[in-house]
Amino acid sequence: MKTNLPPKGMRDFLPYEKKCREKIMSIILDEYKKSGFDEIETSIIENLENLVSSNSGENTKLIYKILKRGDKFNPSETSKEDDLADLGLRFDLTLPLSRYYANNRNELPTVFKALQTGYVFRAERPGKGRFRSFKQCDVDIIGDSTFISEVELISTIYKTLDRIGLKNQVIKINDRRFLKAVILKNGFSEDTFTDVAISLDKADKIGMDGVKKELLSKGYDNENVDKLLFTLSEIDSKDLSCIKDIDKESYDNLSSIISVLNASYPNLKIEFTPNLVRGMGYYTGTIFELFYEGSSSAIGGGGRYDNMIEKLSGASAPACGFSIGYERLVDIVVNEKLIDVNNNSLALFYSLEDDLSSVLRAADKFREKYDKVSIMLKKKKFGKQLSRLKSENYDYFVEYDNEDMVIKES
Amino acid sequence: MKTNLPPKGMRDFLPYEKKCREKIMSIILDEYKKSGFDEIETSIIENLENLVSSNSGENTKLIYKILKRGDKFNPSETSKEDDLADLGLRFDLTLPLSRYYANNRNELPTVFKALQTGYVFRAERPGKGRFRSFKQCDVDIIGDSTFISEVELISTIYKTLDRIGLKNQVIKINDRRFLKAVILKNGFSEDTFTDVAISLDKADKIGMDGVKKELLSKGYDNENVDKLLFTLSEIDSKDLSCIKDIDKESYDNLSSIISVLNASYPNLKIEFTPNLVRGMGYYTGTIFELFYEGSSSAIGGGGRYDNMIEKLSGASAPACGFSIGYERLVDIVVNEKLIDVNNNSLALFYSLEDDLSSVLRAADKFREKYDKVSIMLKKKKFGKQLSRLKSENYDYFVEYDNEDMVIKES
Repeated sequence: MKTNLPPKGMRDFLPYEKKCREKIMSIILDEYKKSGFDEIETSIIENLENLVSSNSGENTKLIYKILKRGDKFNPSETSKEDDLADLGLRFDLTLPLSRYYANNRNELPTVFKALQTGYVFRAERPGKGRFRSFKQCDVDIIGDSTFISEVELISTIYKTLDRIGLKNQVIKINDRRFLKAVILKNGFSEDTFTDVAISLDKADKIGMDGVKKELLSKGYDNENVDKLLFTLSEIDSKDLSCIKDIDKESYDNLSSIISVLNASYPNLKIEFTPNLVRGMGYYTGTIFELFYEGSSSAIGGGGRYDNMIEKLSGASAPACGFSIGYERLVDIVVNEKLIDVNNNSLALFYSLEDDLSSVLRAADKFREKYDKVSIMLKKKKFGKQLSRLKSENYDYFVEYDNEDMVIKES
Repeated sequence: MKTNLPPKGMRDFLPYEKKCREKIMSIILDEYKKSGFDEIETSIIENLENLVSSNSGENTKLIYKILKRGDKFNPSETSKEDDLADLGLRFDLTLPLSRYYANNRNELPTVFKALQTGYVFRAERPGKGRFRSFKQCDVDIIGDSTFISEVELISTIYKTLDRIGLKNQVIKINDRRFLKAVILKNGFSEDTFTDVAISLDKADKIGMDGVKKELLSKGYDNENVDKLLFTLSEIDSKDLSCIKDIDKESYDNLSSIISVLNASYPNLKIEFTPNLVRGMGYYTGTIFELFYEGSSSAIGGGGRYDNMIEKLSGASAPACGFSIGYERLVDIVVNEKLIDVNNNSLALFYSLEDDLSSVLRAADKFREKYDKVSIMLKKKKFGKQLSRLKSENYDYFVEYDNEDMVIKES
């Protein structure tokens, strides 16, 4: 059936919505750049093979695949999906960035602070606040293996959202190395790490009882499961030192990050969260998520992925990134009326007797002072026309006067 | 084979390229908005059926089609391309705008001046300056059937490009109604109009002799072809009045547009071009293209498409639009160094002994004054580090001094 709606899970934006979105985006870009990040852009379309082999967890199942074209398209010879498609839409900005860095590293700074915003696409079941096409706003630091990257990324995002008006931000933080150590130390084998971690990640949704049930149903040893969950429950998230014995590297890393950020930004709350996992297979160290007040789902997240670029290019480069989920952010900002998008707009009325080129010149003159100037044929029902224009957010009204080139304000 | 390049015909952008692109885009958006256009956004992905049935000429053959997903995907039952795909990437911004207007007209102004920029995708053979993914920057006026729309669109584009630095702009203009009248009057039947027009459009590439050869090879009557080409050759593009007898409406329309624009913008050259056609089937009246100095291919173009929205929504709405080809424009601006993209950037050096949170606070302080501030660990080979940073376009260098919180300029 033909429809004028955008496809399911996709959206158009009305002028007011678009204005809000762009205002928020302009603050994000300005703050990211101020903090030393250089803006880049990558292709929206990627080679399908890169997307599929990216170790990106569930996202690789949600790829929009593009049909081969011309001679390469030969459906009668195959019934396999991957033989029909050679390209796909990106599902995040991290894989494209890594590919970009691997391809351009000789032309980029040794420590590359990259900023990228743009649409990503996931063929998910759409739902309230969940779309199939949505924007991400990423900052990444490539080429620095120290915790300073984490500090710079978290502080940049914090300052950006603070300027937009989001008070009471909370960063939940963990380290994949700690997570791995605690799982292995409780009797699980190395190859089960990802699977066990995925269950642990659900703790805030299904509770620790739910996690236990899921791990047992997956067939893990009852005793190991009990030991692991007991160990995790014993960890005091207020006292990082209790993980020192489990993984010294994670302890050093997390305590450095937390202490510098606490000293620099007293209004930012940082919570060590031992069961924070995040979905991607590529994380190697610190992982973090950003929450806003009592919000149950994260506004952003990220972490360290030291091996991804080496996998693509052969040459190693440590990397760490933080991504804001732009759609969630826009929702919050619009609902809580955190920003003002009014502009300085004027309607210039003319009549059919006026010399149109003089009207155009008068309008151009006004454009030196106003953000938006529209010429409009004055209607017979002028009162009605005026009130309609007020509802369309015009602020000023003037009438063109041909006689003496004087502009009369209505 | 795995590659780190973007797919064929697609591009990534390095920081300097991206900075140029964004600077140009910000001028375009600012000028479009100043002239009274409201920014909107439509989905990058469209329902395939809308794209295919849009009367958009060659573009409908260049659609990137997206594989159906989940249960809907059943390749064994079919070998037809269109059964495998249900979505496609947009190939222009005009069809999406028309769909958008048909869907949202009750929430939009009666005369809607829309601005939209964004990527479009065409599976063309890539070549020098021809990409498979490229940006367009469109302004459209919907709901106004008068020539004022054409005047406003052309003046907006002219002022935008003039501000960017493109002097000596030339607008080539024609009217589809004149074109149709002159073809029909010379013995061609109504159903051959599009086909004949497509051949005429090639005059500047293959010459009038080439056009004649092509029309004859298509099987048209020798005498009709000679008469048509003779009539066109007799038309003096400097003297519009000679088309008055062929199509009065076109004459009135074109002379109104040209006289107002000549009076308002003496530096803009407007040339009536009797064999200008443009590729799309949906144009109904004025058509125009923008050239820059001696450039052989157009930087932008557009025209009136009064029937497209009615076809989508059932309710009629006259419409006219003008689109800038952003990639060509960026090429010209960068090659001719028309804009300056320097920013005001500072590197703040610290050493391992410094208190990092104090360094962060000092950097934040500098960010009130500078557009970009990066903290950097001071290296042993400081001279080398400095010269590398200068090549990365840092303008200012300061060293953090822990002792007395004084910043020493390098």
